[in-house]
Amino acid sequence: MFLQKEYVVGVDLGGTKILTAVADLQGNILARVRKDTEADKGKEVVIQKIKDTVYEVIEEVGIKLSQVKGIGLGVPGPVDIKKGIIKHTPNLDLDNINIIEELGELNTPIFLENDANAAALGEKWFGAGKEAENMVYMTVSTGIGGGIIINKEIFHGAGDAAGEIGHMTILPDSEIQCGCGNYGCWEAIASGTALSKLARKAVETGQDTLMNELVSDLSEINGAVVAKATKEGDILAREAMDKVAEYLGIGMANLINIFNPDTIVIGGGVSQSWELMEEKANLTIKARAMDSLVDDVNIITAQLGSDVGVLGAIATALAELDLL
Amino acid sequence: MFLQKEYVVGVDLGGTKILTAVADLQGNILARVRKDTEADKGKEVVIQKIKDTVYEVIEEVGIKLSQVKGIGLGVPGPVDIKKGIIKHTPNLDLDNINIIEELGELNTPIFLENDANAAALGEKWFGAGKEAENMVYMTVSTGIGGGIIINKEIFHGAGDAAGEIGHMTILPDSEIQCGCGNYGCWEAIASGTALSKLARKAVETGQDTLMNELVSDLSEINGAVVAKATKEGDILAREAMDKVAEYLGIGMANLINIFNPDTIVIGGGVSQSWELMEEKANLTIKARAMDSLVDDVNIITAQLGSDVGVLGAIATALAELDLL
Repeated sequence: MFLQKEYVVGVDLGGTKILTAVADLQGNILARVRKDTEADKGKEVVIQKIKDTVYEVIEEVGIKLSQVKGIGLGVPGPVDIKKGIIKHTPNLDLDNINIIEELGELNTPIFLENDANAAALGEKWFGAGKEAENMVYMTVSTGIGGGIIINKEIFHGAGDAAGEIGHMTILPDSEIQCGCGNYGCWEAIASGTALSKLARKAVETGQDTLMNELVSDLSEINGAVVAKATKEGDILAREAMDKVAEYLGIGMANLINIFNPDTIVIGGGVSQSWELMEEKANLTIKARAMDSLVDDVNIITAQLGSDVGVLGAIATALAELDLL
Repeated sequence: MFLQKEYVVGVDLGGTKILTAVADLQGNILARVRKDTEADKGKEVVIQKIKDTVYEVIEEVGIKLSQVKGIGLGVPGPVDIKKGIIKHTPNLDLDNINIIEELGELNTPIFLENDANAAALGEKWFGAGKEAENMVYMTVSTGIGGGIIINKEIFHGAGDAAGEIGHMTILPDSEIQCGCGNYGCWEAIASGTALSKLARKAVETGQDTLMNELVSDLSEINGAVVAKATKEGDILAREAMDKVAEYLGIGMANLINIFNPDTIVIGGGVSQSWELMEEKANLTIKARAMDSLVDDVNIITAQLGSDVGVLGAIATALAELDLL
């Protein structure tokens, strides 16, 4: 009898792009298909595009759907994993959609996961966290998201919403309001967005800074600009960087005290400038977390780059199929 | 053939008292023995006292040690569970003792647990958290301790030290230093000790307050005094109570955002005044935690009173023996 080889598919559904890949059961990506999400055209278009990427990517590898044991789907927002419902997506018209039913014609088990959780799983199995058992993945870019891994599995909590680490209050008396409505959330004061705002405010004071030369308009100041200026010795940029690094360190110290993790993986845009923040963040962590817990944790940057979402979706499928 | 009935023993080792109990395999306590720890007499005395309480309590029930399937031991400090080592006890001379070896003559499996974790297990199985799967137990008295239950089991973390929730930084710019050395820890601003300090400071301003009449000396102001004055309508006491309730709410909101727990159980001395803090704390939680996560969580006070430690030790033994 001829045994057909088996595969999984991962779908990284983003606000602007869908990236879908086929992998073998060891998680090696064999082919990728990328399409614009075209979220403005409505949910039917987005759902059809998800299906199209799956059909196209398996065709590219020359396999049949029946050889796909499962499809992992990473979604940018809260999900109901058991029911297969996307609860809310800030940039997509998919609120309260039962995506598993919508993708029923694929006739393949579909495993839904929040994108930060999927990324955490991806880094755990294929990236920076391979040795980790208890790991916190934090992704710092426009906001701060998180995925918590306990005994090598995602911890979902009571309503599949655990890991909203970006909304822990770090500065309760702050006047900086978070998108969630609260004041002083970690992501409001320590994300890439927070870094840009802080740097812009500093530049507006009129002090001498290289950042003025790097942009033609204040609005162009972003994390990359601050990082570049910091590298070249700019004092204002360094101050903004230090402040955000300190706030990142406070939140990380809290996570260390709460979870006693063996590993923290830092992902997102900020991880690319981590070497500029590391010293200040580590000093803060040492000052604010318990010594023995600091000794227990290994803090590392993510390794999967722009593949983290799709590898996370692949890891989600493999985990649900008990193949990890 | 005659089958002997089987039991477990729980030992709640405290800084001043040892409370030891025998329970059946359903966790019903059949007898208790209590002794002073007499920590000042050194470790040999304390270890002998632990043994004595075990011998006495089983004698009281009229059973033999061979009928005891396991002994759970709750210890006030960090432990290495696998090795059986008490790492540090602030009030006992037992640092770095291998307590399992020291109790070897009992010839019975001994299961070590940190006291806050044991209390969490006790409340989960025999107290307020019977329905809980993912629960945070917080004990608020002189400090704030915690035990995290995930999928009905204690989450220990990489070094058996998870749950140091009292040392999450809530007010990084605070001048209030915590016993751990850090500034603005949750327990430094929201424990019973913090409440007493805040009330004393308010009384020292010389404003009119009932608290002056309730004590003969400022140093006597404690949580119970503040609670009594608050109940009788005292404004200064109410303000101190509200401030601490707000800080408690901030930390609880953080735990809700991070864990998405189904249950938070509030234990410790403060739980007895929780009805005076509940409204303010809940308002803070609603303002600072994500709505759907607030909906998911049930916040309740502990039920086991002064038996929480010994029932926690019993639950620890039953859990380790897979009898829960």
